[in-house]
Amino acid sequence: MTDSPLMRPLREQYAGLRSGKLTAAALAEASMEANRTRGQRDHVYLTWNGEVALETARATDRVLASGGDTGPLMGVPVSIKDIYAVPGLPTYAGSARRLPRHWEEPGPMVSALLRQLPSVMGKTHTVEFAFGGLGTNAHWGAPRNPWDQAHHRTPGGSSAGAGVSLVNGTASLALGTDTAGSVRVPAAMTGVAGLKTTVGRWSTAQIVPLSATLDTPGLLARSVDDLAFAFDALDGVLTSRSRGIPSRPSLADLTFGVPEAYFWEDCSPGIAESVQAAIRQLEAAGARIVTLDLPRTDEVFTLFQQGGLAAVELAAFLKTQLPEAIDGLDPNVAARVKAADDIPGWEYVRRCDVLKSLSASAAECLTRVDALLTPTVTLTPPTLESLEPDGAYARANMQALRNTVVGNFMGLCGLTLPVGKDAAGMPVGLQVLAGPWQDARLLAIGQAIEEELGNSLAILGAPPAP
Amino acid sequence: MTDSPLMRPLREQYAGLRSGKLTAAALAEASMEANRTRGQRDHVYLTWNGEVALETARATDRVLASGGDTGPLMGVPVSIKDIYAVPGLPTYAGSARRLPRHWEEPGPMVSALLRQLPSVMGKTHTVEFAFGGLGTNAHWGAPRNPWDQAHHRTPGGSSAGAGVSLVNGTASLALGTDTAGSVRVPAAMTGVAGLKTTVGRWSTAQIVPLSATLDTPGLLARSVDDLAFAFDALDGVLTSRSRGIPSRPSLADLTFGVPEAYFWEDCSPGIAESVQAAIRQLEAAGARIVTLDLPRTDEVFTLFQQGGLAAVELAAFLKTQLPEAIDGLDPNVAARVKAADDIPGWEYVRRCDVLKSLSASAAECLTRVDALLTPTVTLTPPTLESLEPDGAYARANMQALRNTVVGNFMGLCGLTLPVGKDAAGMPVGLQVLAGPWQDARLLAIGQAIEEELGNSLAILGAPPAP
Repeated sequence: MTDSPLMRPLREQYAGLRSGKLTAAALAEASMEANRTRGQRDHVYLTWNGEVALETARATDRVLASGGDTGPLMGVPVSIKDIYAVPGLPTYAGSARRLPRHWEEPGPMVSALLRQLPSVMGKTHTVEFAFGGLGTNAHWGAPRNPWDQAHHRTPGGSSAGAGVSLVNGTASLALGTDTAGSVRVPAAMTGVAGLKTTVGRWSTAQIVPLSATLDTPGLLARSVDDLAFAFDALDGVLTSRSRGIPSRPSLADLTFGVPEAYFWEDCSPGIAESVQAAIRQLEAAGARIVTLDLPRTDEVFTLFQQGGLAAVELAAFLKTQLPEAIDGLDPNVAARVKAADDIPGWEYVRRCDVLKSLSASAAECLTRVDALLTPTVTLTPPTLESLEPDGAYARANMQALRNTVVGNFMGLCGLTLPVGKDAAGMPVGLQVLAGPWQDARLLAIGQAIEEELGNSLAILGAPPAP
Repeated sequence: MTDSPLMRPLREQYAGLRSGKLTAAALAEASMEANRTRGQRDHVYLTWNGEVALETARATDRVLASGGDTGPLMGVPVSIKDIYAVPGLPTYAGSARRLPRHWEEPGPMVSALLRQLPSVMGKTHTVEFAFGGLGTNAHWGAPRNPWDQAHHRTPGGSSAGAGVSLVNGTASLALGTDTAGSVRVPAAMTGVAGLKTTVGRWSTAQIVPLSATLDTPGLLARSVDDLAFAFDALDGVLTSRSRGIPSRPSLADLTFGVPEAYFWEDCSPGIAESVQAAIRQLEAAGARIVTLDLPRTDEVFTLFQQGGLAAVELAAFLKTQLPEAIDGLDPNVAARVKAADDIPGWEYVRRCDVLKSLSASAAECLTRVDALLTPTVTLTPPTLESLEPDGAYARANMQALRNTVVGNFMGLCGLTLPVGKDAAGMPVGLQVLAGPWQDARLLAIGQAIEEELGNSLAILGAPPAP
């Protein structure tokens, strides 16, 4: 699998496609082969689009051969989370029923992607309406985390198939969304890199909403460098504020804040150790490490446990747009949507006000450092069986998201990249948080970190064979 | 009273102060005299600031004499609604108790005003927390509407003292706020001009919030021309989008939309007739009049009757910032704050979404004309006695605000100017609505209308003597 051309860095794919050493069809075929050998067992795609993608890839190759260039993501095999509207592919948003057809008309994000002629290999599984951090789904089942072949461990969610699609070689880039950690958690749990963008930077139009206030489109890829490449290909179209990725800073010029409180609590064995080792390595390489606690993180977690904004906002969306979906909701989703009935309007407004105030404090705090470093997820990906007892799902879900949701509630942008394995042999992610609208600089910082620590393949090797 | 220098147009006061024919002290003294003869009976001010204002005026005169000029509103007697924080003056927001001292630190609007050295004559009565359109207040009583000396009729609200302060000669400019009509209703009911700005154009910081989503600072003055003068003096400081008031258009170049539905229902005798006569006069003077109905106005009114956003947002503010104020609320305010407990968060979110969609439709609709013309208020100012029976207040309050709230819920800016008297001899207002951010052009259009119809004094004459 590591011989597959689509496992190569995006910059190599880009060069290969343009020099004629690689074709879009070869990339799409590699994805199809991976889907045959691993994809079906991994249960990544709700809708597989291989044959159509291959046809498109062949047409793309003719455009390439004639000297045409539709953009950096031309010919790149991509997976798309099943809450993005994509022409020609049904949208379920992880629910039991296909959503109305207007949920197949693309928004700005998908349009910006499709105009470059990537190969859309399929739509990946998601937690129903993206409301959960583990990646489970009562209607469609959970993708397998490829790093444990003996047990069915969660892949992280809600972008449940996104990380797995990269690890198993069916995609080189995955589109996800992040409202409380739904890009960063599956990226960390499957050992890839993930970017949560600043709220409002990239439009969420025609992405089935979980929380209109906090939803953000995001990217997963096998390296921070791939993320930076893809970000550059999209950001200029999606925001007028785009300035491109700045040049990679030297670690010696960077100051990282490391919190003492909150982010290290209840770490599964080996997680804190891996992240601390990575931070020490960065320090040894010249980075300045200072202690920096974000203010009011406990308040964030309390608010999150109470349903945050998403419970109320998803309830509003379902009641007004998809009332027929409510009765059949995944029990783990239904419980929190139902609980929203008991959150009065004034309490929702209060929460919005608290988030504004938290965001202002955090933005101020983040100006003191280049970025904040924490574990991305403190929980080793649990087995499905371990989630069955009463209350086990809710507890694990809260723990999976507790470090990432801080970034959402505080209006930050964030990255995760793999730094090692925990005691269970599962990937461990380092979260890098930066102030609002610092997305491009955050990627440059992430590239500097990755250059020192090594990328996913160097750190984790290949996942075990099925 | 009509001899008072502060009853002169602001442009004349401006010129007089700079030519030495008029002094700030003379203006302040005229206000104090009016307060002695009419102001106390009219019950305009919760906090009267005459002595301090006179001291300031004398200092201002010395600045003028030395050639200093702090801005167009220098020396102008101003009244400020008691929900703006003003240094040195207590803020009650119409409640029974003085608010905490941080509600006396000025926000951008008051700072922009005060830097010009106006004479702040006092803080005018408001409906408690600005939550009502008639101008009543169980703690402090209602200002008298000066146009009926035989009965105590409502002055309109929530900027209850603002219009009266202009009519009785204690101020030349009044600061109000408008969330559902709280500038336009008191302006119409007292026969003066009023401007409701576009949401977000002028900051509402340090104005006690009723609805953070819909609150807007606004101005009342004795003519549209005075409004335009004051707007120009403030807008450049308050918004980077300021371009100044465009030159006054010719009526022959303007197209006005007049709705057939909604805005004419249940008009008290003489109101529709006065407004229709004004519209005919504008048409005779060359304006093009076309029928134009705003979409979904009934939906606006239903939403408004259900509490809109304000009930929920005021409840959130009080519960988190001023919990001690809740028990003692004016019964007419308390009823709606209490009712907010039954509005779930998802219903509040739904309403926000509806307003966004309404605003988009209305903005599109308004591009077809230069402005929309309607009656400002369809209800003659009721007597206090008529509001006593069960349910009478709620009905009258809804009717008072039904035409203005459309502008708020649809994201428009709006003007009112007097056009005549109704069958009860009370002033009638013409509402002029324009699309978002058209505030400056709306004022120019209003100046053209006023030039044809005549200003307040020409149309209404002087109010009856006490």
